[in-house]
Amino acid sequence: MARLTKKRSKKAGLPPGTLVHIGERTTGQVKITIMDYDEKSFLEREADTVEACFAFKDKPTVTWINVEGIHNVEILAKLCDCFGLHPLVQEDILNSDQRPKMEDYGSYLYIVLKMLSFNEKNNELVTEQISLILGPNFVISFQEGIEGDVFNQIRDRIRNDKGRIRKMGVDYLAYSLIDSIVDSYFAILEKTGESIELLEEKLITNPAPEILHTIHNLKRDMIFLRKSVWPLRELISGLQRGESALIRPDTQLYLRDVYDHTIQVMDTIETFRDMLSGMLDIYLSSISNRMNAVMKVLTIIATIFMPLTFMAGVYGMNFKYMPELEWRFGYPVVLLIMFAIGILMLIFFKRKKWL
Amino acid sequence: MARLTKKRSKKAGLPPGTLVHIGERTTGQVKITIMDYDEKSFLEREADTVEACFAFKDKPTVTWINVEGIHNVEILAKLCDCFGLHPLVQEDILNSDQRPKMEDYGSYLYIVLKMLSFNEKNNELVTEQISLILGPNFVISFQEGIEGDVFNQIRDRIRNDKGRIRKMGVDYLAYSLIDSIVDSYFAILEKTGESIELLEEKLITNPAPEILHTIHNLKRDMIFLRKSVWPLRELISGLQRGESALIRPDTQLYLRDVYDHTIQVMDTIETFRDMLSGMLDIYLSSISNRMNAVMKVLTIIATIFMPLTFMAGVYGMNFKYMPELEWRFGYPVVLLIMFAIGILMLIFFKRKKWL
Amino acid sequence: MARLTKKRSKKAGLPPGTLVHIGERTTGQVKITIMDYDEKSFLEREADTVEACFAFKDKPTVTWINVEGIHNVEILAKLCDCFGLHPLVQEDILNSDQRPKMEDYGSYLYIVLKMLSFNEKNNELVTEQISLILGPNFVISFQEGIEGDVFNQIRDRIRNDKGRIRKMGVDYLAYSLIDSIVDSYFAILEKTGESIELLEEKLITNPAPEILHTIHNLKRDMIFLRKSVWPLRELISGLQRGESALIRPDTQLYLRDVYDHTIQVMDTIETFRDMLSGMLDIYLSSISNRMNAVMKVLTIIATIFMPLTFMAGVYGMNFKYMPELEWRFGYPVVLLIMFAIGILMLIFFKRKKWL
Amino acid sequence: MARLTKKRSKKAGLPPGTLVHIGERTTGQVKITIMDYDEKSFLEREADTVEACFAFKDKPTVTWINVEGIHNVEILAKLCDCFGLHPLVQEDILNSDQRPKMEDYGSYLYIVLKMLSFNEKNNELVTEQISLILGPNFVISFQEGIEGDVFNQIRDRIRNDKGRIRKMGVDYLAYSLIDSIVDSYFAILEKTGESIELLEEKLITNPAPEILHTIHNLKRDMIFLRKSVWPLRELISGLQRGESALIRPDTQLYLRDVYDHTIQVMDTIETFRDMLSGMLDIYLSSISNRMNAVMKVLTIIATIFMPLTFMAGVYGMNFKYMPELEWRFGYPVVLLIMFAIGILMLIFFKRKKWL
Amino acid sequence: MARLTKKRSKKAGLPPGTLVHIGERTTGQVKITIMDYDEKSFLEREADTVEACFAFKDKPTVTWINVEGIHNVEILAKLCDCFGLHPLVQEDILNSDQRPKMEDYGSYLYIVLKMLSFNEKNNELVTEQISLILGPNFVISFQEGIEGDVFNQIRDRIRNDKGRIRKMGVDYLAYSLIDSIVDSYFAILEKTGESIELLEEKLITNPAPEILHTIHNLKRDMIFLRKSVWPLRELISGLQRGESALIRPDTQLYLRDVYDHTIQVMDTIETFRDMLSGMLDIYLSSISNRMNAVMKVLTIIATIFMPLTFMAGVYGMNFKYMPELEWRFGYPVVLLIMFAIGILMLIFFKRKKWL
Repeated sequence: MARLTKKRSKKAGLPPGTLVHIGERTTGQVKITIMDYDEKSFLEREADTVEACFAFKDKPTVTWINVEGIHNVEILAKLCDCFGLHPLVQEDILNSDQRPKMEDYGSYLYIVLKMLSFNEKNNELVTEQISLILGPNFVISFQEGIEGDVFNQIRDRIRNDKGRIRKMGVDYLAYSLIDSIVDSYFAILEKTGESIELLEEKLITNPAPEILHTIHNLKRDMIFLRKSVWPLRELISGLQRGESALIRPDTQLYLRDVYDHTIQVMDTIETFRDMLSGMLDIYLSSISNRMNAVMKVLTIIATIFMPLTFMAGVYGMNFKYMPELEWRFGYPVVLLIMFAIGILMLIFFKRKKWL
Repeated sequence: MARLTKKRSKKAGLPPGTLVHIGERTTGQVKITIMDYDEKSFLEREADTVEACFAFKDKPTVTWINVEGIHNVEILAKLCDCFGLHPLVQEDILNSDQRPKMEDYGSYLYIVLKMLSFNEKNNELVTEQISLILGPNFVISFQEGIEGDVFNQIRDRIRNDKGRIRKMGVDYLAYSLIDSIVDSYFAILEKTGESIELLEEKLITNPAPEILHTIHNLKRDMIFLRKSVWPLRELISGLQRGESALIRPDTQLYLRDVYDHTIQVMDTIETFRDMLSGMLDIYLSSISNRMNAVMKVLTIIATIFMPLTFMAGVYGMNFKYMPELEWRFGYPVVLLIMFAIGILMLIFFKRKKWL
Repeated sequence: MARLTKKRSKKAGLPPGTLVHIGERTTGQVKITIMDYDEKSFLEREADTVEACFAFKDKPTVTWINVEGIHNVEILAKLCDCFGLHPLVQEDILNSDQRPKMEDYGSYLYIVLKMLSFNEKNNELVTEQISLILGPNFVISFQEGIEGDVFNQIRDRIRNDKGRIRKMGVDYLAYSLIDSIVDSYFAILEKTGESIELLEEKLITNPAPEILHTIHNLKRDMIFLRKSVWPLRELISGLQRGESALIRPDTQLYLRDVYDHTIQVMDTIETFRDMLSGMLDIYLSSISNRMNAVMKVLTIIATIFMPLTFMAGVYGMNFKYMPELEWRFGYPVVLLIMFAIGILMLIFFKRKKWL
Repeated sequence: MARLTKKRSKKAGLPPGTLVHIGERTTGQVKITIMDYDEKSFLEREADTVEACFAFKDKPTVTWINVEGIHNVEILAKLCDCFGLHPLVQEDILNSDQRPKMEDYGSYLYIVLKMLSFNEKNNELVTEQISLILGPNFVISFQEGIEGDVFNQIRDRIRNDKGRIRKMGVDYLAYSLIDSIVDSYFAILEKTGESIELLEEKLITNPAPEILHTIHNLKRDMIFLRKSVWPLRELISGLQRGESALIRPDTQLYLRDVYDHTIQVMDTIETFRDMLSGMLDIYLSSISNRMNAVMKVLTIIATIFMPLTFMAGVYGMNFKYMPELEWRFGYPVVLLIMFAIGILMLIFFKRKKWL
Repeated sequence: MARLTKKRSKKAGLPPGTLVHIGERTTGQVKITIMDYDEKSFLEREADTVEACFAFKDKPTVTWINVEGIHNVEILAKLCDCFGLHPLVQEDILNSDQRPKMEDYGSYLYIVLKMLSFNEKNNELVTEQISLILGPNFVISFQEGIEGDVFNQIRDRIRNDKGRIRKMGVDYLAYSLIDSIVDSYFAILEKTGESIELLEEKLITNPAPEILHTIHNLKRDMIFLRKSVWPLRELISGLQRGESALIRPDTQLYLRDVYDHTIQVMDTIETFRDMLSGMLDIYLSSISNRMNAVMKVLTIIATIFMPLTFMAGVYGMNFKYMPELEWRFGYPVVLLIMFAIGILMLIFFKRKKWL
């Protein structure tokens, strides 16, 4: 299960723009990698110091600076200052408890995204915040660096000049990064879809109480996924409408495609939520049905044996003058009557469809 | 039950525009049929090779190329390239997990639709994706080719010059295809409506646990139908508003008609969902009611026989000095008292309206 | 209960504009009545043949042609062709499974409405489709002719020159027809309101299982009513905004009034739905409450008599050496103890507020 | 409980503009009071005949005519005709089953409002319709005259020249009347708020079945209040936007204030609805919890005494050869074993946390 | 638990603009503190009399007047009159039952906010209303003064010239105050988030009835928080759109940041509400599950011992001629049969998966 809230409170009351890191990971080294390319040239380098990035600021080629780990406030401040980022942007990059959003600062766009992945070990949904800065000829991406990286396939494409990426500009690179994040949502939805189908089968064959917690956890995951995807819609729609000059018209077509995917993710989440609700109803009804079955067994047993036990009790009384007790066939007659009562009761329950 | 998600994940991370087929059917031959007509001439041909279609690209007559089977990436790429389709369109045609949508690429419109049909054998709702390309003088339709074909009646109309179709342009052909798909939704709704009426009757006469699963399955179908129809509304409304020059004004009237049908489908789906929810409530209440009835039987039996059995137990005790036991009419008096208690209990329950 | 869906499927795949009648009533004669009037003159006539109407097409006076029965395709086609109606309109008139809508065809407006009435015999809500054609100087109304007619009072007003109707134009006549249909909704709402109040009383005094089905049926009626009224809002709002030259400004004031009524009908439907949901909750709680009461009775009886029966059982054992059995006052002492246990149990339950 | 619907049906089919009174109160005299004032002069008079009002029509001072009782159609028609009110307005004034609305007739505004008050005697919410006509220099207010009057404080203010009212125009008077009606909603909300707090306490200490009906009644009241307030929002927003020249700009500030109050009323109603739903859930859970407790008692008793009674029964059998019966310490040993079984059972239930 | 409504009713009917204090705290002294600063100078003073503030009205430096305690009507009236506030504003400041809102009076903005804090003692959510007046060079803030103060950190920043605050204008000060209030919401959400996580754990391990009330209280808190935050969104969005000249463009960036935070608070509230609803469902299902378990125990016990007790009863009958009683091995055979029945029953329940 994902953490519900992050410790944002430690920031309460500080002046806006104060750089404080809010997030899970707090140790380890910050890793900065630089990729610089155009249609012909290509350069990849791991930056030892943050200053190594500064040279790329005004290069006309496409530069992608990827920062893994956002807990070192000092390094980030240097990088951001060099690229002229507003203090509020710097603050937001550090705070990993952001809502997906896109902000247009004129000379650059600031985009916040959420990457989601399943931690197979403890069956948890892990959230990682990705901040993108899209400048005129550079993209800076900030990752928290908790889990693995979904950008590797994009790196491969750049390195090996696969697809269109080397021929297109910096906005296409930003689109590719966003697209790979949206694609990762489909993976989670597929996993969830499989879980739901499995659950539905179980629900029919053997509705055990564990199902309840599985449904609850899936519902919870859907709530979290929805929280990440819902604002994405608006974000990408904003990018696609082409209000910023940083997005070229031919990239807008691609953004429309991601937008469609986002809508589809939302649709699927809603469908899953509807189905999970439906399954909960079915589960509750199953419990009631089984309770009913249990009650019927009890009632049948009690209804048959209580009158019989009473009869046996009557003839166990010690009255002096009980003529039946003296009769020669008293005992077998009473046994027969008891048997008849039992049979009649069974017929009665058969008629009531309890058997 | 329809599959929840398709294996889209195998595409994650590939460059956009990469042609990968995502869908159910993966074998068999691709079948391409060509119909070319105007008010006077008519030609129908099955294309052996994809190249046979190329000649029709610039013919002024109306050309309808229908492709059944989208799993052969190579053939599709050739066809699309000849007709100048954008790589993203080619990618979307192959991916059968699209949301219904309409995209205007200037010189042609790209329309994605979902055809739904009931597989009578296993009572499943089968989805098939239909992609339409509406160009200035051609319509290309791509079907997955899983189930039968709803376009046969349109072919008949063209062959036999029935209705207006031969007199109208290529946009009217596209409208006819869309209309026949929307019509197929009504068939499903009718079937569902009948199921619901049947269920309602059962609910009153004999609310068995199977009803629960039938309700659940119908709800599920409605969720899926809704997912297919909801975006259709926007799609057709977009076509009808006449933003594209490819749609002539006199066809817009017909599109308004399909739009009305779509709204009606949505309305009916919502009504069915409301009714299914209502039926679930009724079913749950019925269970509770029957549980109540069972409990009452148990309580009545216990309340009558427990005191009586106790009395019998008392006179079954072996105390030496129990004066009642010696009395001449002890036994019949006790029997009478027991009888009276039983009657009183029954009257009590009658008063409480438990009987 | 109203039928859920009509057999629209028999039309699937036919060319648009094909005239096929979809509806309940399929036999009997079509009855055409003509009323022609202005402030001074008045003429009423029953048309034997459809051709009798043609003369009224271009008369400057207000002409109202009312057609009862829409199953005779031929007659309708003749009438529609004479008045120049679009094939799609003709198709829609025949199809009694339309959604309320208004379509502006320039020289005339096509309006579809739903008339609802209670069939007292089987407590069913009966729907009848009314199509109106509002031309420059004529109104043609098409009724299915299943149930009675709500237009009689309008006919009276025209005949006897009551109110404003003879002084106003053809748009006022159309308004009057719409108004009388909306008024008929109020009648249904009043009936429903009375049923709900009756139910509420029953719910408190004697919540029997039949209530469940009554609630369900009322909910169902509200769903249907809502389906008919919701699109009406848009329809009348469209008329009232005065986009069509056929609606004169002074009639718009009256349409605003009908619009207000429609909103009020919607409001009331929503209120009723809310109340019915609330009543279902109350009903379910009542069942639970009564189950609780039943369980308490059972538990009290069992808790009192089980220990007592056990005691009696103990002294009914046949051990040779049971000193109590020999005691002079063994029997009365045991009886006293049993009595005391019973009293203590009752006090215990009193304390627990179960009694 | 408020009446659900009024007998609107008696109007069905009559020509629009026909004056028919629809409402509760049908007897008693109509009382007309006139207040005429400006900053310096002030005049108050009760009108014996409706003609007494006519003189005030064109006086430049602010005139407020208050009509209590709307069942006398004749008097109303005279008054309305004198002040030039449209027949539809006259009709609406008489029909006390209107939805709150504002209609701009150019030279005057017609405003319908609902006054709500608690009838303490039978704990009912009483609705009374108030119609306001705001002309260039007069306000006419029509009350049904069922309950008391919320306008007394405004009369006092005018008489004693308190606040701004004598210095401001006729629109400020209309605002004051609306404001006093909205204020009356707060009183109802406060009363409801207190009821809810009381209920919440009861819910924790002693969840009796009566709570159910109290919740139901409060929910019902909120549904009614909502129905009255929701359209008010739109109404006041319309007035405040200053579309009518009858509302002066400095009065708009005050209308913004009433608008805020209306929003607040809506907010509070929604909050109350949410809370009442929550309480219903809690109540239902409490019932289940108590049922659980009852069942546990029953199960504990049965589980302890059933095996013991069986044991006693065994030694009450009359077999000739039962060696235990002859043993010297058979009886006390069996008693000890029974005691041990009882204790073991209790430990078992303790472990299961049922005790 | 927060109070549901405040005693607004004591104001009903008074002329608008009448100054009446509506709130909790009614005693104690009003405390007025003044801070006056620009980039270079700084002055802090506690005002003994309200007149001490008047001098700051037209000073070009930024002046912040903070008023703690709003129950002294006289003092407030003097202050407001000096700074030229509209009577309606004065009225609203006194009424602590306002909805968050922003009103533009041209020369100043009037902003109402709600500060929320947890009272740890009785676990209650405490609401305090904050009114802000943003003039051209002054901010006046009115607090109710019930709980502590969230503005201390801002005072520190001004005193010690931390961050940007001394360099920025009066609008930045207003932004800082709003920001610190929104930050306080995050603290409450964190606390709630922790409570929810704790609850989820308990729900799985030991679903006791207290959980119900905790869920109810958390739900209630979320309803209240939502009521405070929802209008805030609109408020800040209004400020940020820059419609007022009092907000400089560079402050708008900061307001966009607060706006994002508000959206995030709303998102989290909705998520929490969804989760709490889900938990209630789980809790209810758990109760049903446990009831089921209890019923099974009862049924197993009854089903095993009722037939056995009956058998024992039969052989306890006192008939003269009961051949079995005379048999040498009657007793052990019967015991064996009883044992066998018991074992068979257990196997039966094992098969039914009740054990």
